Amino acid sequence: MSEKPHTVDVAILGAGSAGLSAWRSAKKEAAKKEGASVAMIDPGPFGTTCARVGCMPSKLLVAAADAAHHVRQVSKLGIYAEGVRVEGREVLQRVQRERDRFVGFVLDVIEDAKSAGEIIEGSARIVGPGRLVVGGETEVHYNRLVIATGSTPIVPLPFRGIENALITNEDVFELQAFPKSMLVVGLGSIGLELGQAFHRLGIRTTLLGIEGLIGPLTDPIILEQARETLSQELDIHTEYQLEKIERVDEGVRVRFVDSAGKERDETFERVLMAAGRVSSLRRLGLENLGISPDEEGRYGVDPDTLQLGDAPVFVAGDANELHPVLHEAADDGRIAGQNAALFPNIRAAWRRTPLSIVFTDPQIAIVGGGYEGLGDCAASAGEVSFHNQGRARVQGVNAGKVRIYAEQHSGRILGAELFGPGVEHLSHLLAWAVQADMTVDDALGMPFYHPVLEEGIRTALRDLNANLRHGAPIKCAVAEMGVGC
Amino acid sequence: MSEKPHTVDVAILGAGSAGLSAWRSAKKEAAKKEGASVAMIDPGPFGTTCARVGCMPSKLLVAAADAAHHVRQVSKLGIYAEGVRVEGREVLQRVQRERDRFVGFVLDVIEDAKSAGEIIEGSARIVGPGRLVVGGETEVHYNRLVIATGSTPIVPLPFRGIENALITNEDVFELQAFPKSMLVVGLGSIGLELGQAFHRLGIRTTLLGIEGLIGPLTDPIILEQARETLSQELDIHTEYQLEKIERVDEGVRVRFVDSAGKERDETFERVLMAAGRVSSLRRLGLENLGISPDEEGRYGVDPDTLQLGDAPVFVAGDANELHPVLHEAADDGRIAGQNAALFPNIRAAWRRTPLSIVFTDPQIAIVGGGYEGLGDCAASAGEVSFHNQGRARVQGVNAGKVRIYAEQHSGRILGAELFGPGVEHLSHLLAWAVQADMTVDDALGMPFYHPVLEEGIRTALRDLNANLRHGAPIKCAVAEMGVGC
Repeated sequence: MSEKPHTVDVAILGAGSAGLSAWRSAKKEAAKKEGASVAMIDPGPFGTTCARVGCMPSKLLVAAADAAHHVRQVSKLGIYAEGVRVEGREVLQRVQRERDRFVGFVLDVIEDAKSAGEIIEGSARIVGPGRLVVGGETEVHYNRLVIATGSTPIVPLPFRGIENALITNEDVFELQAFPKSMLVVGLGSIGLELGQAFHRLGIRTTLLGIEGLIGPLTDPIILEQARETLSQELDIHTEYQLEKIERVDEGVRVRFVDSAGKERDETFERVLMAAGRVSSLRRLGLENLGISPDEEGRYGVDPDTLQLGDAPVFVAGDANELHPVLHEAADDGRIAGQNAALFPNIRAAWRRTPLSIVFTDPQIAIVGGGYEGLGDCAASAGEVSFHNQGRARVQGVNAGKVRIYAEQHSGRILGAELFGPGVEHLSHLLAWAVQADMTVDDALGMPFYHPVLEEGIRTALRDLNANLRHGAPIKCAVAEMGVGC
Repeated sequence: MSEKPHTVDVAILGAGSAGLSAWRSAKKEAAKKEGASVAMIDPGPFGTTCARVGCMPSKLLVAAADAAHHVRQVSKLGIYAEGVRVEGREVLQRVQRERDRFVGFVLDVIEDAKSAGEIIEGSARIVGPGRLVVGGETEVHYNRLVIATGSTPIVPLPFRGIENALITNEDVFELQAFPKSMLVVGLGSIGLELGQAFHRLGIRTTLLGIEGLIGPLTDPIILEQARETLSQELDIHTEYQLEKIERVDEGVRVRFVDSAGKERDETFERVLMAAGRVSSLRRLGLENLGISPDEEGRYGVDPDTLQLGDAPVFVAGDANELHPVLHEAADDGRIAGQNAALFPNIRAAWRRTPLSIVFTDPQIAIVGGGYEGLGDCAASAGEVSFHNQGRARVQGVNAGKVRIYAEQHSGRILGAELFGPGVEHLSHLLAWAVQADMTVDDALGMPFYHPVLEEGIRTALRDLNANLRHGAPIKCAVAEMGVGC
């Protein structure tokens, strides 16, 4: 503790998407109070998870992979291309160049914050109420705290011995060349997007998941459709039993039983670990505030105010494990920053209708609480298959299925699970409809041009309309069919 | 007049999209009245303009053309394809095969109607109140009439001498091979979509329009953006002066001054005439009902009830020249069929928020009344360019611009003009927002995932929000800038 302690009114741990948003919103409030100071504390590298190692580089990789895939598919439209070649180095260079551009916008903001003396560089640890130590040296005193330190990849025990053959989203975009083969562990959005992209870029890829799950899908019918469609293209297994994993010269040798019950003994140059992420809350010294996690390791963050227990501490972004996606992190930051600045006069914030999208092909999305979020017997579902949907056939992308849910009696649209073409767009339309409190009737009265994928949504809405009138509630019906809730 | 006259309660002229929809809705009403009969009268070919020679085959051709284009573009993503080859015959065969499938669904319905004795084949002419002659022979008596006879391509005078070198949307999809060169006359949706498709399929193509117009665009800023972007790819001229056109062995020799003022003297194998369509109302014998067009050749169809004057006659679909797009034709048919069946107890119908889309690349769309439909000084605009929009850059489709309009004071979204990537989807989102009476604030509170094209819409909404607070009304402002309203 060499220096005189800094004192800051609102200290924000983390200068990522949530932290930057909290900083902006806390400053806005602080500007109303003379002398109130705000600072972000972050050890770097700066640039946000999304821009550096998340949404942006993954979408850039997916764009190249999808292009390669579509070039191989165009013969069905009467267009021929020979000698399709993936220049791995160029693909990675574009990913890195465009990513650096996106990161650059963030760094500009960081520079502004630095110039204003509002960034303290270093890792922060909470040492007591109102007290942090940064970089093991500098003491920082705060009145209110925002924690926006994000999350880190989980590496399950059996994979901890394979050392540098193991990569995560944190380093995969730094590769200078693609490996020849890749084992992807985990079928969340990272594993699915990158796994399919590697496959399409010509890398021998195997994808392994657990519990039959694919991304955020919970509707058994959509899940089954996704499993079937993705299995036609990918060596993907939604269950597996690991028997042995060892580091070998060529990379990693893995023995496992795949979801078809087949014994596999294969060697992969790399293992991409995408088995989930864990909040960084556990290693910040919260115990020094008398705050400890519950038995499942979760901290009691109020989802409406983002306050942690009764302390003047607010948790935003991936660290709160509520909605680990960029646009929610930005909202989180706004709420946490504002409440930190206004403490103790904090507010419960409005939230947008939940929406999450996985940029596989076909794409996956959940609107509202999805199937899992439905009450037991008060909702009906309507469905469309894209197999014979007009616009999807025209474009040769006719795979997938969508289910939309509505409340019985009121007919209010509650949410949807989507797997199909253009789902990044269709899910926005449905999420807006949910947030605007539309009924199925309202939505059916909206314009649907022809021919568009949105007409598939209309088909599902019509089916839903009929089911609202005559069908049994969805979860009961599904249970009767033996699919289980 | 060889046979005993048929008598039908509701006669529907035309068994296309509007006619079929009118038939369904008139039957539904007629079912409530014992003995009320409904019949469609059509000379064939059956199958609807949309499925046979409109939306569907054009989108199929565009899908192949866009695929060819994108294959040529993938090197920017690090993917290489050599020897890109368009197999014209295969492209056309897929267009024809898939089109026939779509037409087949219509023909199934026609067969059902025939089996029910509800189709009379032949061209109908009105010979007096309640009296038609079909096929020059059969007399048909009706109580109420729905006219859904569609429209036909206009061929301007100078082009009438080039005979079989001239094709329209009615025959272009029947080609067995692509011509080597094509002059496209008209920059409405047909000319734009097919002209760009021909170009991308390797046909030397020149596109000519009039009055500076591109599709349905009316906003001078979006129009200018479209002109600039499309001109980079296409030999497109939004004004031209025809000097001479003559039939030659190789096709058609055309001398014209293009929009850059350059004298052109070129020969094209074919001329695609897409200079607009004219309602078939003029040649049905309406004068025998005492109904005549106004000085501009338009008939007085009530846009709310679709009634023609005071007669028990209702006009649906392209024939009424109100909204010549498929989904409006279907609504028209519903309204006209219902009102014909219920006459004289007719109803003003609800209509959806207007939406029209042109499937060029980038796509074009108008939501609501667009710019042209705005009042003089009561609206503000907000704008986004896709040039640096994140998702558009990721996918390498970063061209275009969108302008959204809102009412001053209330902030209610009024409409938009769009030219850019994914516009078929973005325009639905905005059209639904308009119909749901959303304000700019409401829309900004909706979920926007990251990274998606919808974030471009958010940028425009934010700009609009700022302009609503501080900006001058759009049309006044534009006028001051000298662009003119």
